[in-house]
Amino acid sequence: MTQARPAGQHTVRRHNCALVLAAIADSPGRSRADVAASTGLTKATVSTLVDRLAGGGLITESGRQDRPGPGRRGTSLSLSPRGPHGLGVEIAVDYIATCLAGLTGEVRELRVRRADNRSLSTARVLGRAGKAVREALAEATARGIAVGGVGVAVPGLVEEPTGLLRVAPNLGWHDVDLPAELAARTELPAGPVLVGNEANFAALAQLWTSGPDGARDFVHVSGEIGIGAGIVIGGQLFSGTRGFGGELGHFPVSSRGPRCTCGARGCLETLAGQEAIAAKAGVAGLTELVAALSAGERPARSAVREAAGRLGTALSSVLNLLDVPCVVLGGSYARLHPWLAEPLLAALRARVTGAPWSPVTVTASALGSEAAVRGAASSAVRGIMADPDSFVAS
Amino acid sequence: MTQARPAGQHTVRRHNCALVLAAIADSPGRSRADVAASTGLTKATVSTLVDRLAGGGLITESGRQDRPGPGRRGTSLSLSPRGPHGLGVEIAVDYIATCLAGLTGEVRELRVRRADNRSLSTARVLGRAGKAVREALAEATARGIAVGGVGVAVPGLVEEPTGLLRVAPNLGWHDVDLPAELAARTELPAGPVLVGNEANFAALAQLWTSGPDGARDFVHVSGEIGIGAGIVIGGQLFSGTRGFGGELGHFPVSSRGPRCTCGARGCLETLAGQEAIAAKAGVAGLTELVAALSAGERPARSAVREAAGRLGTALSSVLNLLDVPCVVLGGSYARLHPWLAEPLLAALRARVTGAPWSPVTVTASALGSEAAVRGAASSAVRGIMADPDSFVAS
Repeated sequence: MTQARPAGQHTVRRHNCALVLAAIADSPGRSRADVAASTGLTKATVSTLVDRLAGGGLITESGRQDRPGPGRRGTSLSLSPRGPHGLGVEIAVDYIATCLAGLTGEVRELRVRRADNRSLSTARVLGRAGKAVREALAEATARGIAVGGVGVAVPGLVEEPTGLLRVAPNLGWHDVDLPAELAARTELPAGPVLVGNEANFAALAQLWTSGPDGARDFVHVSGEIGIGAGIVIGGQLFSGTRGFGGELGHFPVSSRGPRCTCGARGCLETLAGQEAIAAKAGVAGLTELVAALSAGERPARSAVREAAGRLGTALSSVLNLLDVPCVVLGGSYARLHPWLAEPLLAALRARVTGAPWSPVTVTASALGSEAAVRGAASSAVRGIMADPDSFVAS
Repeated sequence: MTQARPAGQHTVRRHNCALVLAAIADSPGRSRADVAASTGLTKATVSTLVDRLAGGGLITESGRQDRPGPGRRGTSLSLSPRGPHGLGVEIAVDYIATCLAGLTGEVRELRVRRADNRSLSTARVLGRAGKAVREALAEATARGIAVGGVGVAVPGLVEEPTGLLRVAPNLGWHDVDLPAELAARTELPAGPVLVGNEANFAALAQLWTSGPDGARDFVHVSGEIGIGAGIVIGGQLFSGTRGFGGELGHFPVSSRGPRCTCGARGCLETLAGQEAIAAKAGVAGLTELVAALSAGERPARSAVREAAGRLGTALSSVLNLLDVPCVVLGGSYARLHPWLAEPLLAALRARVTGAPWSPVTVTASALGSEAAVRGAASSAVRGIMADPDSFVAS
């Protein structure tokens, strides 16, 4: 490894600060001595860094350690629930959502504002997104909470190195610099603004909330008006060489079918997206569709069965290509799971070549349509956790 | 990292032996002192290990080092072209191939034996494969070459942890333990027998022969009677959670189409495989197809164009999912490249959502149908390079 510049004291402190914070996050209740033992840092260094993190409001130090056995008891360190929060923002086709999440992962506030963003100009939608961000920041201020990072989820292709939204077909957007656009409309907090595809953020939220025993290899399918996939392999998001990976909505499932926003025909989302299913079932939207399904109405059930077949065609190819046996239904698909899962599973079993040796599973995300904005907020939190010193210094 | 047992002297020697050999492979012509400087080992240790590797026939030491400047000249070390070879074996649907490759990567011998393996029993094909291996080993012995490892390429799903061939639909094989079957038919050399999917070995061969400036992110499509994909991302083979990844042949490209060996209808290989194209063109096989294409015959050209469209449907989904912009046409597709590439590229440009920001490319593999067996032989060579001490000791 070559470094362009020698690592100075500041670089070392940034690194060690993150190390100490991670040790406290991993085992809340540890003393300074425990942290020194687990990180290999001296007690004096740990004490300096703990003071710095506590001064910045990231950790709290309380009472005596509650553990059995002999020896001196240290005070118990833990992440502060009032520490810096991550702000998640999601600009979806039919809503704008914001979410504030704390260092310990808890969601403090989540707000969804319905709107048909397709019928509005880009400037208008960005104006609304800016307003949503201002309101969320004001809410945080009113609660005495600092915001240490922002994550923005969008239904489109986001170039990872630049954070530029290249295209969001369902919004009709091209080349939008979201951090700059939002910064022009609201006073963003110091710290990075992470922009990412909503399906990828949703898959990360699923990974992070499923706990240490949760699946580490799965495809999270976000069924909304568009359809996106987030691929998690070995506990890591796989987003391709530039961040464009996981594009599932334009998977060709029919040589005919209606014209898609991408210009092609027979794309998965025109035949198995939330609006396509509702239209086929003869109902107005997702809520009405769920009601019709619950009432056992035939057109609704047959529309979902047909969509399950289309989705099975696309997902079987995904599973064959990636050799991942678990599908997590997210977004509106999570609500359709009781009717969607069985025919989908049948389609997958018929087409996934590795299925006999590792049964395919289809589960519903507990987070549903909230997953993307929660993932965006949690990604911002992880950004703070990875470099707490920058937050303290700012 | 926890080790079950303390690392003994033998473990250290194995590690350092590989380190010294890699240093010599990276820069042939180095002296013992150069190797000591680049590895950080003492000159005494390097000398002991160089003697051991030279004694085992893996390296040669010759003449004076050819470099300018003052200072003592050491002798020049390099991999021995007569060092242990890797033996590659490929059991394909319509041939059995063997390949001997040396430590420096050169192919010493490659032999393809045509046969319609679908019409023969598993035992019969295994008998022929055993015979091919015996002949290749005899050839190596006649040339005074030791074989240090074996790689076996098969057109099916190979479970990575066990090396068990779970299913090869085009051969009609199920649960075949190839190392055991081959060992029962021929005296295999000491050392591991690596079994893998032919498309994965072909992709590795493409990666390893394309040099340091070659593509590091590509999908290698092996078009034979079946169709397989080998996915390379960041210079690493991606083969999924169990090694079953890259299954492309059963990608559904039509809701109708002939019944496939997998049981489904409309699978890519039934519509765009080598036999399907030849049948559509009204010719007997690949050679006749290429002749008809070169002569500008319309049925042949239209058959290839149709296959290109099918392949484009499947590959656009692969590229959208993985965000990889390069397709390498391998196997019989390499020979069809002059006629296949343009309509395929047109189909991909129309469907790959990230194409405007990173143009899709379609190139032909220089290795063609030899790629898989060469990749199997090279994998065996890399096994020797990773643990030369075991070869010396055996």
